[in-house]
Amino acid sequence: MLFRHHRRSSATDAEVIQVKAVVYEKPYSVAVRDVDDPRIEHPNDVIVRITSSAICGSDLHMYEGRTAAEPGIVFGHENLGVVEETGSGVVSLAKGDRVVMPFNVACGFCKNCLAGDTGFCLTVNPGFAGGAYGYVAMGPYRGGQAERLRVPFADFNCLKLPQGEELESDFILLADIFPTGYHGCELAEVSPGESVAVFGAGPVGLMSAYSALLRGAATAFVVDRVPERLAKAEEIGAIPIDFSKADPVRQILDRTGGEGTDKGIDAVGYQAQAHDAGHEEPASVLNSLVDTVRPTGRLGVPGLYVPSDPGGPDEHAKHGQLLVSIGRMFEKGQRMGTGQCNVKSYNRQLRDLIIAGRARPSFVVSHELPLDQAPLAYEKFDKRVEGYTKVVLHPVLAA
Amino acid sequence: MLFRHHRRSSATDAEVIQVKAVVYEKPYSVAVRDVDDPRIEHPNDVIVRITSSAICGSDLHMYEGRTAAEPGIVFGHENLGVVEETGSGVVSLAKGDRVVMPFNVACGFCKNCLAGDTGFCLTVNPGFAGGAYGYVAMGPYRGGQAERLRVPFADFNCLKLPQGEELESDFILLADIFPTGYHGCELAEVSPGESVAVFGAGPVGLMSAYSALLRGAATAFVVDRVPERLAKAEEIGAIPIDFSKADPVRQILDRTGGEGTDKGIDAVGYQAQAHDAGHEEPASVLNSLVDTVRPTGRLGVPGLYVPSDPGGPDEHAKHGQLLVSIGRMFEKGQRMGTGQCNVKSYNRQLRDLIIAGRARPSFVVSHELPLDQAPLAYEKFDKRVEGYTKVVLHPVLAA
Amino acid sequence: MLFRHHRRSSATDAEVIQVKAVVYEKPYSVAVRDVDDPRIEHPNDVIVRITSSAICGSDLHMYEGRTAAEPGIVFGHENLGVVEETGSGVVSLAKGDRVVMPFNVACGFCKNCLAGDTGFCLTVNPGFAGGAYGYVAMGPYRGGQAERLRVPFADFNCLKLPQGEELESDFILLADIFPTGYHGCELAEVSPGESVAVFGAGPVGLMSAYSALLRGAATAFVVDRVPERLAKAEEIGAIPIDFSKADPVRQILDRTGGEGTDKGIDAVGYQAQAHDAGHEEPASVLNSLVDTVRPTGRLGVPGLYVPSDPGGPDEHAKHGQLLVSIGRMFEKGQRMGTGQCNVKSYNRQLRDLIIAGRARPSFVVSHELPLDQAPLAYEKFDKRVEGYTKVVLHPVLAA
Amino acid sequence: MLFRHHRRSSATDAEVIQVKAVVYEKPYSVAVRDVDDPRIEHPNDVIVRITSSAICGSDLHMYEGRTAAEPGIVFGHENLGVVEETGSGVVSLAKGDRVVMPFNVACGFCKNCLAGDTGFCLTVNPGFAGGAYGYVAMGPYRGGQAERLRVPFADFNCLKLPQGEELESDFILLADIFPTGYHGCELAEVSPGESVAVFGAGPVGLMSAYSALLRGAATAFVVDRVPERLAKAEEIGAIPIDFSKADPVRQILDRTGGEGTDKGIDAVGYQAQAHDAGHEEPASVLNSLVDTVRPTGRLGVPGLYVPSDPGGPDEHAKHGQLLVSIGRMFEKGQRMGTGQCNVKSYNRQLRDLIIAGRARPSFVVSHELPLDQAPLAYEKFDKRVEGYTKVVLHPVLAA
Repeated sequence: MLFRHHRRSSATDAEVIQVKAVVYEKPYSVAVRDVDDPRIEHPNDVIVRITSSAICGSDLHMYEGRTAAEPGIVFGHENLGVVEETGSGVVSLAKGDRVVMPFNVACGFCKNCLAGDTGFCLTVNPGFAGGAYGYVAMGPYRGGQAERLRVPFADFNCLKLPQGEELESDFILLADIFPTGYHGCELAEVSPGESVAVFGAGPVGLMSAYSALLRGAATAFVVDRVPERLAKAEEIGAIPIDFSKADPVRQILDRTGGEGTDKGIDAVGYQAQAHDAGHEEPASVLNSLVDTVRPTGRLGVPGLYVPSDPGGPDEHAKHGQLLVSIGRMFEKGQRMGTGQCNVKSYNRQLRDLIIAGRARPSFVVSHELPLDQAPLAYEKFDKRVEGYTKVVLHPVLAA
Repeated sequence: MLFRHHRRSSATDAEVIQVKAVVYEKPYSVAVRDVDDPRIEHPNDVIVRITSSAICGSDLHMYEGRTAAEPGIVFGHENLGVVEETGSGVVSLAKGDRVVMPFNVACGFCKNCLAGDTGFCLTVNPGFAGGAYGYVAMGPYRGGQAERLRVPFADFNCLKLPQGEELESDFILLADIFPTGYHGCELAEVSPGESVAVFGAGPVGLMSAYSALLRGAATAFVVDRVPERLAKAEEIGAIPIDFSKADPVRQILDRTGGEGTDKGIDAVGYQAQAHDAGHEEPASVLNSLVDTVRPTGRLGVPGLYVPSDPGGPDEHAKHGQLLVSIGRMFEKGQRMGTGQCNVKSYNRQLRDLIIAGRARPSFVVSHELPLDQAPLAYEKFDKRVEGYTKVVLHPVLAA
Repeated sequence: MLFRHHRRSSATDAEVIQVKAVVYEKPYSVAVRDVDDPRIEHPNDVIVRITSSAICGSDLHMYEGRTAAEPGIVFGHENLGVVEETGSGVVSLAKGDRVVMPFNVACGFCKNCLAGDTGFCLTVNPGFAGGAYGYVAMGPYRGGQAERLRVPFADFNCLKLPQGEELESDFILLADIFPTGYHGCELAEVSPGESVAVFGAGPVGLMSAYSALLRGAATAFVVDRVPERLAKAEEIGAIPIDFSKADPVRQILDRTGGEGTDKGIDAVGYQAQAHDAGHEEPASVLNSLVDTVRPTGRLGVPGLYVPSDPGGPDEHAKHGQLLVSIGRMFEKGQRMGTGQCNVKSYNRQLRDLIIAGRARPSFVVSHELPLDQAPLAYEKFDKRVEGYTKVVLHPVLAA
Repeated sequence: MLFRHHRRSSATDAEVIQVKAVVYEKPYSVAVRDVDDPRIEHPNDVIVRITSSAICGSDLHMYEGRTAAEPGIVFGHENLGVVEETGSGVVSLAKGDRVVMPFNVACGFCKNCLAGDTGFCLTVNPGFAGGAYGYVAMGPYRGGQAERLRVPFADFNCLKLPQGEELESDFILLADIFPTGYHGCELAEVSPGESVAVFGAGPVGLMSAYSALLRGAATAFVVDRVPERLAKAEEIGAIPIDFSKADPVRQILDRTGGEGTDKGIDAVGYQAQAHDAGHEEPASVLNSLVDTVRPTGRLGVPGLYVPSDPGGPDEHAKHGQLLVSIGRMFEKGQRMGTGQCNVKSYNRQLRDLIIAGRARPSFVVSHELPLDQAPLAYEKFDKRVEGYTKVVLHPVLAA
């Protein structure tokens, strides 16, 4: 913990009607400002005092002004804290419970939630499948980079943690990137004894490789070109593949006797860079995966592809249509799973791995900062300078 | 049975060293010619006297000269007949056994065969995953539109049938299109009570819809524009959608309360026609499926996509790269399975449905002809005239 | 519908504070009496006007006095009706919605509910895994053989039906026996093309066989000795096996070439009768299944076994320990699934089969009666006279 | 390697017509004797020079005279070596290939083999489902505790290993106990983040716990009373539970907050000892599992139960019928998988974990001895003295 002089939550003070929060102002600018204190709006709500809220790579899409996010939105979909108030309908939670919330907001009873597809809830964001905190177009849920957060359908959306402050920087990753990395393995159906290629060694890619090895993969290749990221991959037992040195497909084929891997994970998405140059080539990672994975293999795609990308390199890309090697994919009989993570499907089991001491995903956290340093953190994380790879904000002290 | 004056097999005659076979001569031309009688080449081979061999839509690719097939190749990968000779290593088959063979040639012991992926056998066609009878680039296996056929790894590749001649036109479909249609359901994970949209009402599309209903689907939509095909779809209990009348995506959304179907099957492939015009639009069916299937749905793609298509409408299509709505697919969290059918994974169970009287796939068979009418049959089938939709050739009498 | 002069619900009348209900009085005696009108007790409750409530074979355990059920308990766990009031936390239901409820009461957010195991909810019946309406030891939930019913966690527990009165006698079976029969198939993993043996042709056994065929089983054998039940089995396409004629294991082995079936379902449970005599032999069906199902097969056991049976034939049976052919089961490598049905896992899909016209489970319903005939119905059903096999009570008119 | 002066194989010497083998003489007595050199009997056979053959706990059943094994039988079903001769039908193996064989002999093409159930092959041991080397009633396959071994259906039954001598004591465990332990996890469906209770810390129990942790289990409890075994369990990261100290069910419930474990594995079988005394209580482990595993949990039973046990404590046990807590199992909705391991389903993946350095199962090997010390090894292993827990015999030098 790097912060010290941060005020304790004053939320128990009846007069308080404002809380501090990270507010989007304009492209490349956020501020910590006072906003209305959240309150119980529905019997199934709880209010959580936020002790940790992480900045996600997808927050940068809004930060950079590449989305329709309006000024005033409070960021933050990776949230952990302590329950302070409970609605009259809440039955499994009590004041004082330490909880972490999936980034997805979900109802728990629609057709998709019943099927475990909580990332595609049909209730919480009418007209769309899926909701989230603090994100443009994902419903009316304020973000958690703030002192307090309203959590709807709280019995369903809160995962209880051991009381106290322990393992805070591991548990906070249960809100998004640890399950999201794991989701890549689920989509790719990574099984014990298999080989897997992960493209991208950002936090999600590293979590995918880490999850693959936790699940018993024999070999995990991780493709990137940033030395620090590749070093992290090696630390956790993966095999780093530097794509700036040589074609990564070729490198992996060479290391698998020409066969390719059993499974592959695209943890990069549509902002993929061409291997040989600095421009975006949106389907290049996906097509590299098709070439890397052996016939009958599976591709997991937790990396983001969007149906509308105003900054896309051509007219088709702007509408989310990319040139995919579907002919080769068919010839190889591959299967592909896509989409954002259903955090609720995995977070309990991953929590239990952390509690049992068998998983320590916090190795990807680079910085832990008080809330008021959020503006600086966003700036540096956006520029990827000074080792800013994963920042956890601490709005209030955990204890 | 339409044929009468067809000669009985002379294969039991020791002097015979030639058999009749359908031989490719040049684009749009096949002939029935004498070829060398096949013989046991390996201890695990058997020789089968062919009583039924069907013409497949994919035979037309070679027939039309759109492949690298050389003159002299014997066609026929959908084969059924009676064992006449067995190699010294064969243990489960005897002379006189009636058998049907998957179109895939497979070894039974490579990594892919062990996983049930017999369409991607690593043994039978060195350098490639998968082999077949009578098909260009699929290995050195002569086709079965001939009086006799050599079947390698016979214990693995032959499926025994009840003795006699009964149900011949149902059983012959176990070689390819019934399992291939069923494979579409497997790839799309069609489950009881679900709705499914099948694009294409050719033999494979009809078999997909038929299989979906056999598996307990609540609703199967079948999209085509040929009235006879749509009528067949309706006959088996599916809901016909005529895409020449209106956008099929819209039609299906309207009939599902705007939600779309749970699952979708592409039984068309890369030779898809644009809905509004006569030109090919290779990814149009695939992208329509993405739009038709609801979030979290699954897409099964048994329809063929190829990595190299010299006749493709543009440079990318020629290399098997198509503009796929990957952004929308990701947003919906869909999963997609592709590739040719692993017939061996399903043929026994489907056979048992036929024997029990619960499946009668022969409703798709339009013509049954003696071998010598093959040239005419190819010509009419290629032109889709006179109701030629599925032709079964009978090289020798079953009895 | 057999009833006519039944009063309409007066629940909308503000003065009404009593409703009619089927109340247990003493062994072999129930009465229709006035009880307090249920009311909203929690924000997530709804009150449902009951138009159909079926009598279940398990109600007879209480009726016969073989349980710890106290006088005064209101029976009825198979309930369908129309929403009349909604608690302040309910979001997906409105007054006037027609709904059917699983017999299991479940919370939707505990570990078991999240896993789909709603029959083993950890919230609704503290200290036990699983709750139900109107059943001894299954929690404080009054039964629905009454004019009105309180449904807790209503967003989760109510399944919406098409408005109106149509298909009432099919939809009511979604509360229990249709899903329970289907559950037998899930536990036994019945797949297309397989053969299955179902022991017991009571409502659950018939629903198991019906479900197996809906799922694409090639062959379903149904074992019983009551001619009417065996006739029903035959009507739906199953093969009746009369165990009073000969050993059913032998009969089924003979009809499967000595191999046995792929799968087996025990729809009888611990009150199994010995084949050759009139006494109970609690594990006889289970052990017959072991002998009937082929090596590597699966056994589904929806039939009830209890950990405490004061009427058991010996000391071990009284404690739920039975002599099971575990040696033979191991030698055959069989797998066995047990336990009550998680209705919520199947009821939507089965509803959709009914709506699509592909399933009509009401063929098992023998009688539809107004509520005031409940005492007579219990008596005759308990004696299995006059064809009483499945009775649906109609407390209020549907319209 | 403990041995030195052992002769090299003379199998390449044309005159040799006898090989050394471990031969059963009478209860408690085996001898190393000359037996006829095995030879190719079928085109799909190979002859393997055996470099490692392990003694299995199940060999002791024959050794102790508790089976129908006749004098003269050659023991050994856990075999590894180098191919020396290949039949004319073999296509994937060549002289010099280093291979390990599953203990199951399987054909690769029967219905069960196709389904992956190679432990229940219908071809190799007519009239029974399943065959093995060197085991009474498991077919005419001589055991591999000998200098040379005939392997039928060799393309299917041989798993290739890296050339050389490396990792010999890890690879030999691929023949049986590593896959068998893993099979326990498959039967119990052990998934990442779960807790599992393993009863028995013999080689199979340890391999089950080791496999569970490899697959990502959060917690593995291992129940035994032998301090050395419990110490091994702790070494690999499991939690030892000494059942001689207190009721193991109680101990595990206490360590899981009263809930019990998610999954359970019975690695003991029918020779279970009562916890409080020295006598056998055949179903005691199974019933303890039922009590230890939480509702909805799964039980994996790789531990042996037999349909005929002349030494059973009562008449029912002699016929393989045991008093099982089926009532409690049903109430908890548990599922149970039984049966011997289908080694072929797992051995490749487990081999790849060894090659990648992620698994080192050889920690269970206590002794490595030349073939001529087999009599002593059997005697000491049978008495469980001097730390004899897992003995690997080396009939010929690997190099």
